[in-house]
Amino acid sequence: MSHILSYPLLREFTQEVFVRMGCSLEHADKASEVLLSADLRGVDSHGVARLSGYVRLWEAGRINTRPDMHIVHETPSTAVVDGDGGLGLVVAPFAMEVALLKAETAGSGWVSVKNSNHFGIAGYHAMMALERDMIGMAMTNASPLVAPTFAKERMLGTNPIAVAIPAGEQPAFVADFATTTAANGKLEILQRKQQQAPYGWIQDKEGAPSADPHELRNGGALLPLGGDREHGSHKGYCLGAIVDIFSAVLSGANYGPWAPPFVSFLPLPPDPVGEGLGHFLGAMRVDAFRPAAEFKTHMDQWIGRFRSAEPVSGEQVLIPGDPERVMEQERREQGIPLLEPVLKDLQEVAVKFKLTLNI
Amino acid sequence: MSHILSYPLLREFTQEVFVRMGCSLEHADKASEVLLSADLRGVDSHGVARLSGYVRLWEAGRINTRPDMHIVHETPSTAVVDGDGGLGLVVAPFAMEVALLKAETAGSGWVSVKNSNHFGIAGYHAMMALERDMIGMAMTNASPLVAPTFAKERMLGTNPIAVAIPAGEQPAFVADFATTTAANGKLEILQRKQQQAPYGWIQDKEGAPSADPHELRNGGALLPLGGDREHGSHKGYCLGAIVDIFSAVLSGANYGPWAPPFVSFLPLPPDPVGEGLGHFLGAMRVDAFRPAAEFKTHMDQWIGRFRSAEPVSGEQVLIPGDPERVMEQERREQGIPLLEPVLKDLQEVAVKFKLTLNI
Repeated sequence: MSHILSYPLLREFTQEVFVRMGCSLEHADKASEVLLSADLRGVDSHGVARLSGYVRLWEAGRINTRPDMHIVHETPSTAVVDGDGGLGLVVAPFAMEVALLKAETAGSGWVSVKNSNHFGIAGYHAMMALERDMIGMAMTNASPLVAPTFAKERMLGTNPIAVAIPAGEQPAFVADFATTTAANGKLEILQRKQQQAPYGWIQDKEGAPSADPHELRNGGALLPLGGDREHGSHKGYCLGAIVDIFSAVLSGANYGPWAPPFVSFLPLPPDPVGEGLGHFLGAMRVDAFRPAAEFKTHMDQWIGRFRSAEPVSGEQVLIPGDPERVMEQERREQGIPLLEPVLKDLQEVAVKFKLTLNI
Repeated sequence: MSHILSYPLLREFTQEVFVRMGCSLEHADKASEVLLSADLRGVDSHGVARLSGYVRLWEAGRINTRPDMHIVHETPSTAVVDGDGGLGLVVAPFAMEVALLKAETAGSGWVSVKNSNHFGIAGYHAMMALERDMIGMAMTNASPLVAPTFAKERMLGTNPIAVAIPAGEQPAFVADFATTTAANGKLEILQRKQQQAPYGWIQDKEGAPSADPHELRNGGALLPLGGDREHGSHKGYCLGAIVDIFSAVLSGANYGPWAPPFVSFLPLPPDPVGEGLGHFLGAMRVDAFRPAAEFKTHMDQWIGRFRSAEPVSGEQVLIPGDPERVMEQERREQGIPLLEPVLKDLQEVAVKFKLTLNI
């Protein structure tokens, strides 16, 4: 059973929670916008369902709600940003703004971030570039849950990549995906429905194929995009590794198995190799390559041609970002459905901060 | 049965072929180096096995062996290069040099290329960055052989991505992979061995799963990394699309199904939307983010930790680039094995240009 809450109500509630955690009004506003962009776009695992997780990280002293975010090193087109232990929901937009400003003058801007926390959905940050006629990119490392090809051990996060590309008449191209076969949120759905997972999503603690969506609890791991060697899992492993290195080795954050866990009940890995989580954000001005109007006309043609590609019987060829855009329109109008356990979580957060959640 | 030819012999022969096609000595030298880097690294499908293909493209008037390669637009960190219809084997290193020079001054350099042809292996171009303590990236679009998720139609090439990252004591991290489950070269191997392909590599002309390695002849298509929707093929489709857009829409080359075919017996698609094939090349100075020595120490630690990840029984966890590096060492010393049909092809090329191929 699910309850439907309006976007403005959830936005106000979430903002107030961040304020009570000690965020400035400006940061709380941004954090709630970023967090809820996940719910609007249908990525339910990364939205308000995680609010209580952020609260617990803050209670454990792992989030600085008054961060002094700043550039520690820069060139005309690059920078490293220190997030000062702040919410990734606030640090990543700050860093993306640096990338966008650099792109204004240098044509492109690339920012690696250390000392941050989870940043919500990658797509939000990449899409910041669109209104300025720029291509945006965002990636982040995350809690180690993924085994490289041929490994038993969890070494990488689901390390998402988002790329947003502006068009003219057509809506923008927005790709946003984990570099695993399936994201952890998909396993949670199967757990709730008590269904098996397809082979290729997870392995057991010995590295053998498994269909048990609870396998991670037993020492199993998520699999890189591709699933197994025969189906190209080494390519998914490459992608996850590149995200990890760009986000954390370039910046000085914790990488690989040293990435701090999102759940506060797990201890931080001993002997850290850097500071906090890492992100990587990029922006390229379209007119740093060719006139923006010309580029957009061709993007429209690209999108139109792919959308009209001959479909497999009964299917429809989609452009990256299509399903999320439709979902956002629907949920802005009709509200955001929350599952019972998520609602219960939010009510506990409300009690903790002496707030009211009107449903 | 295979014949083993020494690297210097093959290099000299290939260079001479390019000279007879009309290339300058400098271009012929570079083109043969790039082409043979595929054979050295074990990517046999992209090396001398393709020499006769380049010759036939040239005979069909589709390659300009005296190109005036030049920058048509630029900012401090970006450029568009016009390859003037030259060999991609020569155009891509020229464009990568532009990216490297821009990175020297702006921290990073990003070059989109139009009016080019096939550029050999992406890894070669990305690796040009390594000796300058830079991260290199290379991608290219290619002949349409891949169906997007839910499509029957071939809309994208195997569109590879290469990323090369320098380390200190450890060998560099070099990822170089097609954004499909399996590259076309793997199907050719199965065809020769008369074996079936695993499901998830190809579909038939109706979009149904197929195991027939000859399926492309019958109107079938290669599948994006992931294989099917349940295993994340929409992510592979996103990757292939991003490569296509960065390589061709940014530069003004032909994109999607308009990309010109490698085989000269197929006609060029009517109503071109741009000029030739497109590439995208990038370089980031490591010390545009943090001191190079510090970065390399952490890359060494990253590589060491991942290489020692607990393996699945009987396996070994690899670092991207490991197998190719071992292969290159071996083949530089022991020579390059060529299959009978490839050797026959080379002998025909020798006859055509009145050259001798000593075996």
